[in-house]
Amino acid sequence: MPVCPIVHLNGSFLPLVEARISPLDRGFLFAHAAYEVTAVYGGRFIDLPGHLARLSQTLAGIALPNPHPAADWAALHTELIVRNNVAEGIVYLEVTGGAYEARDFAGPATFVPTVFAYADAKPLIGKEARDGIKAVFLDDTRWKRRDMKTVQLLSQGLAYRAAKAQGADTAFMVEEGFVTEAASANAWIVTAAGEIITRDLSPAILPGITRAGVLSLRGSGGFTVTERAFTPDEVVNAAEVFTTSAGAMVAPVTHVGSRPVGDGQPGPVTRRIQRLYYEAMGADLAAVAPWALERT
Amino acid sequence: MPVCPIVHLNGSFLPLVEARISPLDRGFLFAHAAYEVTAVYGGRFIDLPGHLARLSQTLAGIALPNPHPAADWAALHTELIVRNNVAEGIVYLEVTGGAYEARDFAGPATFVPTVFAYADAKPLIGKEARDGIKAVFLDDTRWKRRDMKTVQLLSQGLAYRAAKAQGADTAFMVEEGFVTEAASANAWIVTAAGEIITRDLSPAILPGITRAGVLSLRGSGGFTVTERAFTPDEVVNAAEVFTTSAGAMVAPVTHVGSRPVGDGQPGPVTRRIQRLYYEAMGADLAAVAPWALERT
Repeated sequence: MPVCPIVHLNGSFLPLVEARISPLDRGFLFAHAAYEVTAVYGGRFIDLPGHLARLSQTLAGIALPNPHPAADWAALHTELIVRNNVAEGIVYLEVTGGAYEARDFAGPATFVPTVFAYADAKPLIGKEARDGIKAVFLDDTRWKRRDMKTVQLLSQGLAYRAAKAQGADTAFMVEEGFVTEAASANAWIVTAAGEIITRDLSPAILPGITRAGVLSLRGSGGFTVTERAFTPDEVVNAAEVFTTSAGAMVAPVTHVGSRPVGDGQPGPVTRRIQRLYYEAMGADLAAVAPWALERT
Repeated sequence: MPVCPIVHLNGSFLPLVEARISPLDRGFLFAHAAYEVTAVYGGRFIDLPGHLARLSQTLAGIALPNPHPAADWAALHTELIVRNNVAEGIVYLEVTGGAYEARDFAGPATFVPTVFAYADAKPLIGKEARDGIKAVFLDDTRWKRRDMKTVQLLSQGLAYRAAKAQGADTAFMVEEGFVTEAASANAWIVTAAGEIITRDLSPAILPGITRAGVLSLRGSGGFTVTERAFTPDEVVNAAEVFTTSAGAMVAPVTHVGSRPVGDGQPGPVTRRIQRLYYEAMGADLAAVAPWALERT
């Protein structure tokens, strides 16, 4: 969906068309910026503290001061969705190194960040969650610190375009024989024996907030997860495949390359995890995702 | 130096303070942008066709149309230095994927680029060229397509900061046991036996225009260059070390870590290459770089 009309820029809420930044901003010149995308459902944020904690980690890793305490970030997020009347969708937040009078790689001793945020109203439990998505394999060309959520996203943009050109929706990125992640989501497989696997945390992947959210359901949901790297062959031979991300939450992957995963339909484990996740965020499943009640 | 007051943005020349871009620009959201930095000396560009050819290659590699033919790019560059009265310095040019109403990784079928350019007046033959710089070794964390000159420059920014924190000026980045490049320059060594070595072209490094310029002087300059990867040990044990880049041209590296290179002064091979390079661009050496006439 188009970005909502009222955005936040450096302390002000203003119309998107008036929100303008300097082309000397380090976000524009050097990709020197952290970002977060937080889901909104039923007018409430899904694990905003988790997103803000990761933001702090990324900022520390890229030498930026955190310009606001968590309470102020939360107020900013809330004001954005209230002003734009967003009950379901996402809030995007970007914090950059700011703009200076000269382009200098190292920059000043202390940065004065640029803060930009917007809301986007869109269904989080949509067609992709219901019908699944198609993936292809691509080389992972990203930089080595994927544990920091920065705007160095060119690889991901090119991966999505390459996937689309092949009639797919996303890419599973492969490095040194193992899948790292999907193009902007964590990757999961369910083996024929029913083992649920997602890659263990390391600088090779983003520590997904939705990934953590699914893991937190293990006890109450009665399932276990093995955290280890897996290969493209394991994906191709998996009974089920899915991805997790803040924007698409739990998305079944029904095809990899030209081949169906299992019977080419979202599988029972994926449906069960969707159901548990949707229930945890307060969704009325019979109304918004009756399909999540099937096969589980 | 501060960016010159008149910049170029999307077809217009305007004051820097009026040049503003959308925070939804793909250069700001995804690091989806190519850039070039072209040196200006004596009011003329140094190998602008080389820079424009590389720009075309980068744009093709990141799915962007080239918005202008070479003649128009040249006119834009010329107008920038004329309007700002720049005889010596650089012109920075950035071409991004443009701004759209929604943040979408894949983007539209065809992009409408944002074009931003500015001039910066500064001495190209300065203190660093005369006295040399200090380098440290750092892991190369960049993405895998360094042959494309994109704004995915966060690694480089962080490398410069880490180098500064150690009292150095730049970093030699190391990957899998070999030096790739300096933080924003190609790296060269001269062995004790007098062999000049720089890394061979591949996706691991930027195909530097100044690197190519130095290589083009081999015949007339009476020197040879071996193009191969070299190790940090070879740097530490080298008789001379230098870097090449458009902004700093040929910069002697006099210290690596806490150790001097050779006698800790710019060496005779480096001085000779500086002299040849400066002469090729029409510099009056006796006036601007008498030190380049020493030791050679």
